[in-house]
Amino acid sequence: MSPHRTWQHPNSALYTDHYELTMLQASLHSGAAHRRSVFEVFTRRLPEGRRYGVVAGTGRLLEGLAHFRFGQEQLDALRAAGVVDDTTLAWLADFRFTGNIWGYAEGEAYFPSSPILIVEGTFAEACILETYLLSVLNHDSAIASAASRMTGAAGSRPCIEMGSRRTQEESAVAAARAAIIGGFATTSNLEAGRRYGLRTVGTAAHSFTLLHDSEPEAFAAQVAALGKGTSLLVDTYDVEQGVRNAVAAGGPDLGAVRLDSGDLVEQARWVRQLLDDLGNHQTRIVVTSDLDEYAIGLLASAPVDSYGVGTSLVTGSGAPTAGMVYKLVSRTDDDGAFVSVAKAAKNKTSVGGRKYALRRLNESGRAVAEVLGIGSHPYDDGNDRTLLHQFVADGEVLPGWTGPEGVQRAVERHRQSMAELPGSVMRLQRGEPAIPTEYEEST
Amino acid sequence: MSPHRTWQHPNSALYTDHYELTMLQASLHSGAAHRRSVFEVFTRRLPEGRRYGVVAGTGRLLEGLAHFRFGQEQLDALRAAGVVDDTTLAWLADFRFTGNIWGYAEGEAYFPSSPILIVEGTFAEACILETYLLSVLNHDSAIASAASRMTGAAGSRPCIEMGSRRTQEESAVAAARAAIIGGFATTSNLEAGRRYGLRTVGTAAHSFTLLHDSEPEAFAAQVAALGKGTSLLVDTYDVEQGVRNAVAAGGPDLGAVRLDSGDLVEQARWVRQLLDDLGNHQTRIVVTSDLDEYAIGLLASAPVDSYGVGTSLVTGSGAPTAGMVYKLVSRTDDDGAFVSVAKAAKNKTSVGGRKYALRRLNESGRAVAEVLGIGSHPYDDGNDRTLLHQFVADGEVLPGWTGPEGVQRAVERHRQSMAELPGSVMRLQRGEPAIPTEYEEST
Repeated sequence: MSPHRTWQHPNSALYTDHYELTMLQASLHSGAAHRRSVFEVFTRRLPEGRRYGVVAGTGRLLEGLAHFRFGQEQLDALRAAGVVDDTTLAWLADFRFTGNIWGYAEGEAYFPSSPILIVEGTFAEACILETYLLSVLNHDSAIASAASRMTGAAGSRPCIEMGSRRTQEESAVAAARAAIIGGFATTSNLEAGRRYGLRTVGTAAHSFTLLHDSEPEAFAAQVAALGKGTSLLVDTYDVEQGVRNAVAAGGPDLGAVRLDSGDLVEQARWVRQLLDDLGNHQTRIVVTSDLDEYAIGLLASAPVDSYGVGTSLVTGSGAPTAGMVYKLVSRTDDDGAFVSVAKAAKNKTSVGGRKYALRRLNESGRAVAEVLGIGSHPYDDGNDRTLLHQFVADGEVLPGWTGPEGVQRAVERHRQSMAELPGSVMRLQRGEPAIPTEYEEST
Repeated sequence: MSPHRTWQHPNSALYTDHYELTMLQASLHSGAAHRRSVFEVFTRRLPEGRRYGVVAGTGRLLEGLAHFRFGQEQLDALRAAGVVDDTTLAWLADFRFTGNIWGYAEGEAYFPSSPILIVEGTFAEACILETYLLSVLNHDSAIASAASRMTGAAGSRPCIEMGSRRTQEESAVAAARAAIIGGFATTSNLEAGRRYGLRTVGTAAHSFTLLHDSEPEAFAAQVAALGKGTSLLVDTYDVEQGVRNAVAAGGPDLGAVRLDSGDLVEQARWVRQLLDDLGNHQTRIVVTSDLDEYAIGLLASAPVDSYGVGTSLVTGSGAPTAGMVYKLVSRTDDDGAFVSVAKAAKNKTSVGGRKYALRRLNESGRAVAEVLGIGSHPYDDGNDRTLLHQFVADGEVLPGWTGPEGVQRAVERHRQSMAELPGSVMRLQRGEPAIPTEYEEST
């Protein structure tokens, strides 16, 4: 059994807003709880100026779905707090999601109104999942979207996720996973490494140098313990002396030096020159000082080998939540016929009716539009790519989307989707979505 | 046993950056791992324009400290991934934190350089806690700081935390707890309610109305199931008709109507008038549409009874992380004497030496400065208030800071600290910290 398999997923049932359960109680009372319903997750707009988003969290929520159970502990807590009545508690005790879930593959690009997740079941069973599904998708997609812009700006140079300390401890695990989906090469987060089979990396902080009586002593200790391939942090005292000390400690096989302060563009240039002058042509330069996608873009011309990114990544680089909502778009009436509901409302903030989605590709395979069908599949001209996949069938999670396998699949999906989008998608300047979202209404 | 006691805290040891353990390995190799060390958590600056921050997370990290253990699962994962060598794994297997921790009480206001947490132990044991401690404090303090500004703007009107869906599922639990510490009255998060004994609230969403064949049917169902004291969401179709339908369903004892869209100031005015005209003088108005501290401030003159706050709260209202760092400030040399280390570095980003802190109060008990002593307690003129409390003594967590008791104590600490600060602290306009941070260096 691989190490990640030993992780015990927590119960996820109470990652839920109080009102999901009071709505359940009221709808059980009215009988409407049993109406078949379709809820959709989408975002009305991208964060300001962003050209695309990246779906992430799908694998995590599918992993958590099996643990969305109201056991004795959860029921006792709800009873003690008087959240719902005994009828509702009895319904919760038996709860198993028995419906269907479709959605965009994890790693896929999304645009305004893209139906990222579609949940079909009774109102009761689809309603109570709302908070949990949105928590996972809103967080993870925000991070993957930021990560994707950063790796786009970095081009072929690898990005290292190292933001754990700047976000809540479990968010840090999810953020590391989402960063990898968005194209990051590695993470510093050990728990993410364990759960999802991700490669973790790391070397030393300023405190390690300060702990020792001198920089040469600290570097010698690190090389002795971690090998010459390690990265030495050279800016605790004086960068030039630090580089010289690093080369003295590691010799020509020293793996890398890390720069964590100052004008990185200018510093990287002369540090590269100094390393080369000292014969350390193979020693890489890692930079790590409050980088975001713009700083990475500005470093494109500097002789930098990899980027360590922390705060900006785990806070979504200005957009810490993806702003996704979960809306009832269709439900049955007393005769069992589906009725599109959102369209009936005057406060028309959602488009009613079950959605189908494809990415319209031109003859060269380049994406030109996000096409949404309402109530039926949009017309596929033969080049197009269907975006919805089934994740859950009659309550059973289908294989391939979860665990390390799901992450690897999402990494590949992200890579392919980015290659298919127009080149403008990589522009960091504020602008419109890279492709328009178009509706094809069924007749 | 109360419901929150049934929650099983997860193992927290791998909420850790890879480099903490490689530093451990290298320092075990050099022998410096055993030097006594003092690390401090502080922030170099407040988020731009903020006048104060609020410490939160202390109770959570003390709860997690007992679960920071390298059990077989953690060791197997580290071995399989080749993170550290066998000597280091053996050290981790025996690891128990045996040092001391002091810090600001949870709920306390903080300012630039305030020593929010001080960890004293061997380098090895203090180093490996870094990532976890910072994750907890950076997240929770960011949320509590935003919450405090919101409750300050709301004055005596209660604020309801309802942002779970816009942040990662475990962050949502921590955010609910931090919001309460920052003065929120209630939360929608059921898991936070269970773990920390918090009161949870909630009523219904637009989907509940849309599920039913008409708004009157939906309202009747909700009142029948949840009682007349419930809050009815009146803006699914037409707000005026919604209010009339709500009053028809709930009668004069209807608890509240909720407004979730539109111009809330103007709407609250005429909805209040309409409710009064219909005889519903006791029916409250709850507003909930993308509120932040500024929107709350603008609603001060509107007849609103409570505020539901989501996205802005859980994303820290523009400052999603508190920016706290964990720095080695002092460690012993080969003779066992403590040496201030940060001051030795040319790259002087921290002030070396163990800190002591008090809040200087004037004769009326109003705070006038944050006074930090380096190496010794600053002079106390008799009115001042000591800010550092001991949380952990020789590895043992001292009672009173964790669980529901810790939260209640933090709520009270926050209330008292805010009352003590100058009135300018509540200004929402950008400005300088409400009180200056001053150093008193020992001679």
